[in-house]
Formats: sequence, structure tokens, C-alpha cells
Amino acid sequence: VTYTIGLDVGGTKIAGGVVDETGAIVHAGRVETPAQDPAAIVRGCADLAGRLARDGGVEIDAVGVACAGFIDADRSTVLFAPNLAWRNLPLRDELAALIGLPVVIENDANAAAWGEFTHGAAEHADGMMLLTVGTGIGGGAVVRGQLLRGGYGIAGEFGHVRVVPGGLRCGCGNKGCLESYASGSALLRAARELVATGGADAIALTQRCGGDPSKLRGADVTELAEAGDIASVELLAEVGTWLGEGAASIGAVLDPDVVVIGGGVSAAGDLLLEPARTAFRRNLIGRGHRPEPEVVLATLGNDAGVIGAGELARQHLEECR
Amino acid sequence: VTYTIGLDVGGTKIAGGVVDETGAIVHAGRVETPAQDPAAIVRGCADLAGRLARDGGVEIDAVGVACAGFIDADRSTVLFAPNLAWRNLPLRDELAALIGLPVVIENDANAAAWGEFTHGAAEHADGMMLLTVGTGIGGGAVVRGQLLRGGYGIAGEFGHVRVVPGGLRCGCGNKGCLESYASGSALLRAARELVATGGADAIALTQRCGGDPSKLRGADVTELAEAGDIASVELLAEVGTWLGEGAASIGAVLDPDVVVIGGGVSAAGDLLLEPARTAFRRNLIGRGHRPEPEVVLATLGNDAGVIGAGELARQHLEECR
Repeated sequence: VTYTIGLDVGGTKIAGGVVDETGAIVHAGRVETPAQDPAAIVRGCADLAGRLARDGGVEIDAVGVACAGFIDADRSTVLFAPNLAWRNLPLRDELAALIGLPVVIENDANAAAWGEFTHGAAEHADGMMLLTVGTGIGGGAVVRGQLLRGGYGIAGEFGHVRVVPGGLRCGCGNKGCLESYASGSALLRAARELVATGGADAIALTQRCGGDPSKLRGADVTELAEAGDIASVELLAEVGTWLGEGAASIGAVLDPDVVVIGGGVSAAGDLLLEPARTAFRRNLIGRGHRPEPEVVLATLGNDAGVIGAGELARQHLEECR
Repeated sequence: VTYTIGLDVGGTKIAGGVVDETGAIVHAGRVETPAQDPAAIVRGCADLAGRLARDGGVEIDAVGVACAGFIDADRSTVLFAPNLAWRNLPLRDELAALIGLPVVIENDANAAAWGEFTHGAAEHADGMMLLTVGTGIGGGAVVRGQLLRGGYGIAGEFGHVRVVPGGLRCGCGNKGCLESYASGSALLRAARELVATGGADAIALTQRCGGDPSKLRGADVTELAEAGDIASVELLAEVGTWLGEGAASIGAVLDPDVVVIGGGVSAAGDLLLEPARTAFRRNLIGRGHRPEPEVVLATLGNDAGVIGAGELARQHLEECR
């Protein structure tokens, strides 16, 4: 039996786990990340891996690290990680030196896609695409059983497919990105706009935030929608529609076997998924003349990155054998 | 030495060639296609292949067929070919029975991408994407040295990525597809609109078509642009800009090593390519923090489909060995 460690490095914490061959996390842990201290995050990764290896009680063969940033084509260097203050950081070799084990690094959404592909919603498919709908939109894809990395390691940036020319400004510097229309931030922006109008539709949302739109959270919208508030249902449907339309465009490029939707906003379930499915089918190229991929919920939740990173480490070991 | 035959089946003709191991067409031929008679096109393919095999004077080991349509995932059946009246046609087996050789079938733009990858503009790359700009926009991509086919054989439909919500109606039934903004048809539509305005800008274009916008051809715009007509230069730049912006969105999905632009409109060269390059770079995800793929002209011209189909037949032989 082989065990690996998967780490998922986010802007505020590092989540980690010991992953076995079935994709189960047999021992988990986490630490806070000092976001603006690049070296401290590297040490935090090494410390957490060391602690998991010690406390897990099993022998670890390799470590996989998922992080929110661009990873170069040979998977050694983090080119740019906006939320971690990492620039051209040779993370693989620095961590391998600290940990004393083989290390694999990968973009976090790619790692999550690999997790859902190997042990989650797409485990019976040969190819898939994952859209993670959180604050932004992350993406990852598997083609013919291999993670789609691209020529420069930057494939699968689905949140930055442009869906509206001259549209809303995105954090990436461009305008009109899918992320600006189909993410948790987009949901919250629309909900706050609705409250600010003061209309009758917005009564439940207005009450929920005490009349202060800035106090509204994404989870409020989902909870109100689940309780039947029409305006909240429609806000989620609007985001789901953009998501499905965007997925159809990305599908025209990749033609996935299955489309997996994950991330925090996907907790809304069919309130997000059904509008997404309808929009996806309506915009699918060649509809009526082709099989249609299913649009399904991710099944690994927040563990997808840790499991995927652990599995990528395992794959690395197998390839090197 | 292995020789294969490549056939490229279009709406009005079938082009074919005997392709050697260097990707050279050593013997070429063509026949008209009776577009509305599905069975006659199949016979036309078989007849042309037979003639090429006889007249080429070399032994042929396999035949590849590129055609404008959706091919199923196991590459045996044409699901839907709008211009050829083919619906659920088991083309591979019908042709193999008629020709008596192994047959491989593929979407025409995918075959062209494979041609440019193996012997054309992207022959030194590991991954690439091709946009063919003709009446419409065709697309094909290579990922890690393998043609991107997708789960249902329909990947690379770049012309049907939506770039404008609620935009112009496309022949595919959707609205706002890249094909409606960045193709030869889009160029001609814009040029005709300009002539119809009767403005001073349009003098050269108006003279060229004798004042009748419907008489204007795409080549007129390119020729006038090459002669320095500002309006024609701008029309090509507008199409090139859409093309570059669309390529940047597709690039956010695929992250190609190199972007290849082919098809009839690419004969305009830098008049199309320079605006496309500028728009591509400006919209590229992560620019400033990553290597940038080059945007280059295709080098195989109209032969890309024949060469690619021949090479796919050769690849099939090698895989079966």
C-alpha cells in the first residue's frame, strides 16, 4: 500500500491529508498561512507535511501540493500566485529539500479536477472538465485520462474565458471574464444591487442583511433561495445560466465526457445546477446531432484539492518506477 | 517507405493526394461532389482513392478522409455533415469495403490541425491550436502530441465559442458565435454594410463592386487592403481583432504552445495577423507572468486537410503494428 500527502495551499490556510490508494484521506490537518510572507508559506507546507507524516502512522512516499497560481510547464516553479505573494518560486525543489521526499506541484483547480477524475464525480469518465464556483471560477480538465496542463502549464483557466466584450472588469486585468458573471462574487454583487434598489422583490434579502447590502453574504442568498425566496432563486438561476452558457463555450473547445461543477456556490445544488444544465444544453454545439455530456455536482467537496494533489504525487511515483 | 492517401471532402469537391512519410503530396487529384447525394459522395471518395492509388505508381497502405462534419468518438461514423447531406453514415466501414484498405475518418479542421502539427507551422511544437478562417471558422488542436478529439469526437469547434451574448445568429442555430465575427463571411458582411452606407470611406470598395454591395467578394477587400485602402485595412483589422480575442479565450482553456491561423482569409497575411496578435496578447490570461505563445500563419495552405488525413492514416497503421 502506498500513501502520499496532499496539500492544498490557499490564501488563508493550508489544508493537508494523508491519502491512500482508494483516494481516502486517512489523516487530515491544517495550518494558517501568513499570506504576505512567501518563505513562511513554504515552511508552513513543510511543517504540515512533516506533522502529517509523523502523526499519520504510515510511511509516506511522495507529497503533492496544490496552490492557487500559475505553475510552469515542468511543474517545478510557481510563476505567479496572486494571493500567496509567490513570484517565480522554485517551490518543488525548495519543498523537496525541506521534506526529503519527492514533491509534485500543481495548480489548485487542476489538482481538484484530478481528484474528481480519479475518485470523484468523473471517476468513470475518460475526459472531463471541472468548474469550481467560489469567490472566483477555477477550472481544470482531463483529456484521454491525462490532466490538461497546456504548453506553459496554464491550461484550464475557464474563469477567464471572455463572455462579454467590454464587460465587467475582472481581477485578472481583462474585462468580461466568465468569473465576473458566474461566480460567488457575481452572485453577491447582483444580490447587493437588488437590495440597493429597495424594490419589493428584495424584501427577504433586505431583511436578512438589516438593510445594509454590504452585510449580505453569498450563503444568505443560497439559504433564502432554499427557503423559497423568489428573488434569491432567480439570482442563483442567473449565475447558473451564465455558468451553463460558459460551460457550453468551453465544451465547444474540449468536448468533455462530463461537466463537473464544484466550489462553495455549488452547495446550492439544483438551484444552481438546473439553470446551468438548461443553458448548457441550449448552447451546446451540434445539439440534436450528438450525445450530450451530463452536468453533475462534484462529490469531493473541499477535499478535492488535497485528494487530487495526493493522487498526482502517486502518479508521479508510478511514472518514475 | 509507406504511402497513404489523404482525401478532403468539401461541399463542392473532393481533393486527394498520395502522401509520403515526409508529408509531401507526391500525386494529387480531385473530383466534383454531388453534394445532395450522400451515396454518390461515398462512391466519389472510393473512385478518387482508387484512381490515386493506380496513377500514383506506389503501393498505398491506408486511406485517411477529412470531412466537414461531426465524427463519432470511435471515428467510424459521420454523425452530421451539414454540407454533405450525411447523417449517421458509417463512412469508415463503407469506404473500407469499397477500397479494400484500412480507412480513418476525421473532421476536416482536425485533420488540417494534424497536418500543420506534423508537417506545417507547428511541426516543432508539442501542442497547438489551429483556427482556419474561411467562410466560417474551423478549429483543431493537438495536446501532448495527440489530436484533441473530445469525449464524443466533437472537440475543437472554435468557431462556435460564444463571444457576444445575444449576438448575431450563427448557422449552427446559436447566437454570438466567434464564426459570426471573425470569419470571411463576417468580413464580407461588414464590407457590404460599409458600401451600403455610401460614405466617403467606402469609395474604393464601392467602385470595386460597381456600387452593388451584393457583388463584393472577400478577395476584393483583401486586394484593396493590400493596395492601401484604409477602409479595407480596417475591415480586416476588425476581423483580426475578434480572431485574436477569441483565440485568447480559447487559449485560456487550452494554453497552446503556438496558435496557427489558416484558411482563405489568412491569405491577407499581416493585415489579418498583426491585429490578431495584438488582440491575443492583450487578452491573454496571466500576461506579464508567463511565456506567450506565438501566433503564426499556417504553411500548408489548402493541402493541410489532405496531408493531415494522410498522416492520420499513417498514424493508424503505426498504432496497429
